[in-house]
This record gives sequence, structure tokens and C-alpha cells, in this order.
Amino acid sequence: MKFSLHAKDLSSKARAGELETAHGTIQTPIFMPVGTAGSVKAVHQRELKEDIRAQIILGNTYHLYLRPGLDILAKAGGLHRFINWDRPILTDSGGYQVYSLASTGRKINDEGVAFKSHIDGATHFFSPEKAIDIQRTIGADIIMAFDECTPYPCEYGYARKSMDLTHQWLDRCCKRFDETTGHYGFSQTLFPIVQGSTFKDLRTDSARRIADAGREGNAIGGLSVGEPAEVMYELTEVVCDILPADKPRYLMGVGTPANILECIALGVDMFDCVMPTRNARNGMLFTTEGIINIRNEKWNADFSPIDPNLPGYVSGYYTKAYLRHLVKAGEMLGAQIASIQNLSFYLWLVTTAREKIIDGSFSEWKTSILPTLMRRL
Amino acid sequence: MKFSLHAKDLSSKARAGELETAHGTIQTPIFMPVGTAGSVKAVHQRELKEDIRAQIILGNTYHLYLRPGLDILAKAGGLHRFINWDRPILTDSGGYQVYSLASTGRKINDEGVAFKSHIDGATHFFSPEKAIDIQRTIGADIIMAFDECTPYPCEYGYARKSMDLTHQWLDRCCKRFDETTGHYGFSQTLFPIVQGSTFKDLRTDSARRIADAGREGNAIGGLSVGEPAEVMYELTEVVCDILPADKPRYLMGVGTPANILECIALGVDMFDCVMPTRNARNGMLFTTEGIINIRNEKWNADFSPIDPNLPGYVSGYYTKAYLRHLVKAGEMLGAQIASIQNLSFYLWLVTTAREKIIDGSFSEWKTSILPTLMRRL
Ligand SMILES: [Zn+2]
Ligand SMILES: [Zn+2]
Repeated sequence: MKFSLHAKDLSSKARAGELETAHGTIQTPIFMPVGTAGSVKAVHQRELKEDIRAQIILGNTYHLYLRPGLDILAKAGGLHRFINWDRPILTDSGGYQVYSLASTGRKINDEGVAFKSHIDGATHFFSPEKAIDIQRTIGADIIMAFDECTPYPCEYGYARKSMDLTHQWLDRCCKRFDETTGHYGFSQTLFPIVQGSTFKDLRTDSARRIADAGREGNAIGGLSVGEPAEVMYELTEVVCDILPADKPRYLMGVGTPANILECIALGVDMFDCVMPTRNARNGMLFTTEGIINIRNEKWNADFSPIDPNLPGYVSGYYTKAYLRHLVKAGEMLGAQIASIQNLSFYLWLVTTAREKIIDGSFSEWKTSILPTLMRRL
Repeated sequence: MKFSLHAKDLSSKARAGELETAHGTIQTPIFMPVGTAGSVKAVHQRELKEDIRAQIILGNTYHLYLRPGLDILAKAGGLHRFINWDRPILTDSGGYQVYSLASTGRKINDEGVAFKSHIDGATHFFSPEKAIDIQRTIGADIIMAFDECTPYPCEYGYARKSMDLTHQWLDRCCKRFDETTGHYGFSQTLFPIVQGSTFKDLRTDSARRIADAGREGNAIGGLSVGEPAEVMYELTEVVCDILPADKPRYLMGVGTPANILECIALGVDMFDCVMPTRNARNGMLFTTEGIINIRNEKWNADFSPIDPNLPGYVSGYYTKAYLRHLVKAGEMLGAQIASIQNLSFYLWLVTTAREKIIDGSFSEWKTSILPTLMRRL
């Protein structure tokens, strides 16, 4: 993997870069659509490439490990081939889902975490070594260290202990990663994760420790878990200022359009979030004109395109009235259209941010456009 | 509307024709995907055109009348514009759904049918005149007469009475149709429907009566409602032999790939059925190699394309193992892929039948290919 910075904003810490992987180059800042179990929900691979213009997607180790399982993924030749997606993929380590989904009967100790599958209740065990082995088999371009992600709010004592455990696990992840190689003829890279809950001193310690690990990129976890946005921004800034500037910074699970632009301004390069696809399935649309609840009566005879400012097939092709009808009638096509709209918007957002960073107008643009993007239409 | 015959098979009654409508020419025999409430379930309009290669789709008057409702459809400028589909559309009259879906509290008399909405229980009334008025507002290219569709089995007395009522209603449909014009600047055409349950003499009477109405095309209703296939074929043949040869014949709600090829051989030109899309959502695939239950364990590591013989995006792009995973995991993309596969297959089936009719090999081809198409893989 190779990361190069192409431009820096003068009035913020925003940067425009390029991340080269074995499956192509990603232009940063970037948003990564979430493809939980090998599918970005309701979206075809062709639509991801041609309409949404996704440059990299995310897979969830927890889900893929349970279904289809490592045996099938190995036989397929890895996740890229299994789902027929030839652009970059990033996988999380499974840590977050083990805590959030498989919480019943979960047992954590220094060795790792025992948990029960949310599908059939069977008991499984993840350790740092196992998380690396699984991600070697899945074969994503960028894989994540196995961490404990603390909930919000979290007591200082627990946050400190959990962070220390995450740091110990990082050493084991790095060791296993460095002792092994990719299974499918291309190289992978491992990103460690800064933790420390909402405590500045812990975040500072953790960021230093993660920077010292000297990996090719770094991630910030445990934010956007319920804390106020201002707290998230403050801690993101603390951490970004410590993490090396010549390596990509990935803020996990963030966020709204405003969160993304604010964190780009703090020096974050990579984002993922289920919000665009999850909200789409509930009829909530992100558009270049503002936020739309398409179930609202006011759209029932609005025959204007959903969002004519976006590239791609659906945003200019279908009308608001038609989409409202589909969502109200429970037609699957409604979720399909809304998912493409929202992901197209998120990709437009980061692509435009990048252009503005390069042409030197990012901060002005951010200030002027945010009220429009976040208003409720 | 203009119908022209281009070729006739020598060893069967199969014909290849062209049906010109205000929204383009349909090559017959043709299969029409069902777009119940203004959406062919799980399929984008672009996929219908470019991948499935649908030439005409069907809309359901009952569903469209209830949701989005005539007010919205009229404001949109008709169904074509509401859903952004510029190829031909056919609407049924609502009769079938009034009987099958809104059966609770349904009251039928000579005037028409009172029924309760399956959505909110509100009472509505359809008459022959109202069915025409509604279909004028929806604006399909081909609209259907309002009929009573008898269930199977059906007593002779009831079948005779019901058929007589359908014939009376046809006169009222024709009168209303001929007194009115299309709302959106293009002309529509009205197809009457042969009824008569499974009784040869009634079917003969009805076919004569429908032929005498002298409309531009004719339909056969009330079949494929549970009777044995042999009965359906026998009655279809009786009716086709009476309906004028120079007008298109539409067999409503049929059927399996075998049903379609057998009925093409009897002189049917147009078909519709929910089977390809409904079965797709249950994981049942029609392919050029046979029928697949993709939930079956045997496909879990089969990394061959779903059906490389078909045109279009999905059939050659995704593998059986991936589709199985999606269906098992309840991912919407599974239903999306399977729906495109099955509709692509149905369009391939009728397109190939047409080619074989033209090159004189239809009957041989039908005999040789049916065992393959209907076998369970
Ligand atoms: Zn999120
Ligand atoms: Zn059917």
C-alpha cells in the first residue's frame, strides 16, 4: 500500500490524497459503503461502480465468518472473487459486532472473546490471532486490528483497562500479521485502532501508542457511539494531531454529512457508516438540497427528479412522487432507489470535498453548503 | 394498434408477429413481466430494458387504483410517466384482484362489484364503465375489459351465468371505451376476455362472442387457476381456433416455461405471469439448464455463473454460490438477482421461440429443449 498527499487546505487540516492498493487507487477523503455480509444492501455491484462510484467497500468480519463462512470464502478465492468486486475492500476485525450483536453470553478475557452467534446461538471464540487469520482468508486489501470498542458512556477505569487490552492485542495482531502473508497473491495491510473512550488523556496515550506501531495507516474507533458531536470532533482532533500526517487516517463508523465534512477538516481521510443505507430503507434521503423524509405527504405529487445534481442512474431518473409511492407500498424498488441515492450523495460529498481541498476553497464551501445539506425539506 | 404476422410454424399453430403500439413495437410471442403497483418487484426500469429486454410490462388496475391512486396518476400524466417507462404497458381490468385479494365483503350484481380494499378495508365499487375510466386514467397502451374470473373448480350453472355477465359487461366496456379517448395524446386499445371455466361448450360460445366484438386483440382468462395443464391446453386450443388469426391472442396469467411453449404452439401470442418474480423471491430459479432451488446445500461452493447462456448483467456476473449465500442470509440483493435471472430467462424463452418459428424449427426445438428446461437441477 502507498499513500501520497496531493493537497492540503490552508484554513483547516483537510487533505487530499491517494491510497494505492492491490485492487486500485482510492482518492481521499473517501467514504466506504458498508457491505455487511458481502452485499451493500439492495445495491448491485454494477451500481456501486457505475452509479454510486464507490472506490472501496467495507465487509464485516463477524458476519462473513458466520455466513457464508471461511470455507466457502477460501474456496472462492477470497471475498473479492466471491462477490465479484475488483476494487479495494476493507474489513473490520469483528470486534465491534461481537460487542454489539452477539452480546448475550459474551465472555472477554486477556486471551480474546467468546460469543454466541446471533444466527444460531453457537459459541465462537475470537482472539487477535484469529481475527488476523480470518481476515487473511477473507482477503480484504485493508484489515483491522482486533480491539475492544467501549460503549458510551464509559467509566474512566474501564476505558483505561479496555484501552490497555486493545494495545496488548495490537501487538499480537501485528505479530501474527507480520508472520503471515496474503492467501491470494496480493498483499494486505493492517490498520491499528485508537481507543480511549471520551477521555482526552486516554485518547492521547492511545494515539501515541498506535502511531508508534508504525503501520501503513491508522484508525480511530469507539467514537460516534452516542456521545455529542462536539465531543467527537474534539477527540478526533486530539488524535489526528498525533497520528502521523503521512499516513491515512480512518474514522470508523462516522457519520452524518456534517460529521464527515467536519472531520475531513480535522484531517480524517477515510469514513464508513451504515447511515446512508439504513436510513434509505426507512425512507430518509440525503440529497444535495437537504434531507427528505420521502414518506411525508408533501412529496406525493412532486414529479421532480429525486436529486438531479447527482451523477448516476437513479437520482435523475426517478421522481420523488414515484419513490414515495414505492416506499409507502412496501415495494423493494423503493429501498433500492433510496440506497443508491444516499450512497451517491455520500460519494458526491467526499469527491466534492476533495475537489474543494485541491482548489483551495474547502473551508468556505463547507461553511456555505452545510446548512443546505442538513436542512429538512 | 397494428398487428402483423411474419411467420407461421408448419407443424404447429405457432406464429411470429409484430404488435405496433404508441410506445413501440412488440415482437410476438411475448412474455410481459408483471409490474403490480407500478414496479416489477425488485427490478429497476433500466434492468427491465437493458438486461431483461422486456418489450412490454403489465400493471394491475386494482393495485394502482388503490395506491398511488388516480389523482396522482392523472397529475403525473399517466403510468408511463409516473414510473418513467417509455415502452408499452398493458393493464388488467381489476376484475381478477377484486375476486382474489379483496374477497372479504365482496358483493357482485349486474351493475358491478363492491369490494373492500386489502390495504385499509375501505369499500369501493368497480363497474365496467368505471374499469374503462380508470384504465383511461392509468393510460396503458392495451387495456382489458372488466370480467368475472371464475375459480376452479366451478359448477356449470355458475360458469354459464358468470360468462353471460362477462359478455354483458363487455358491451358496456366497449360502449364506454368507444365514447372516450386516451387522456395523454396517444390511443389505447381494448381487449375483451374469453371466459367459460373448464367447459368446452361455454369456451366455444364465449370465444365466438368475443371474436364477434371485433376488437383489435383478444384475451383468454380464467385458465391457469388450478386446473390440470392438459385441460388448460385443450381449452386454449378450442378458443384459439375460434379467435381471429389476424389479431393477437393473450393468455392471461400463464405460466411455467412448458405452459408457455405449449400454448405458443396452440397460437397464443402474449403471456404474463407472476411466477418468475414470485418464485425468484423464494430462491427458485429458471435457467437454460433447468430449475434450481438455490437454497439447496449443493450450490454452496458452486462458483459457476448463474446462467452464462443468458444476455444481461446478472446471469453471467454472479455465481450460484454467491446467490445462495445472499438468499440464505436474507439479503435483498438475492431477490434482486433472482428476479432478473428469471425474467431474463422468460424473455429469452419467448425470443428464442420466435426465432425458431421464423427459421421453421419451432416444434423440434420445443420437443428437444423442454426436458432440459423443466428438469430440477
Ligand atoms: Zn455510523
Ligand atoms: Zn401465473
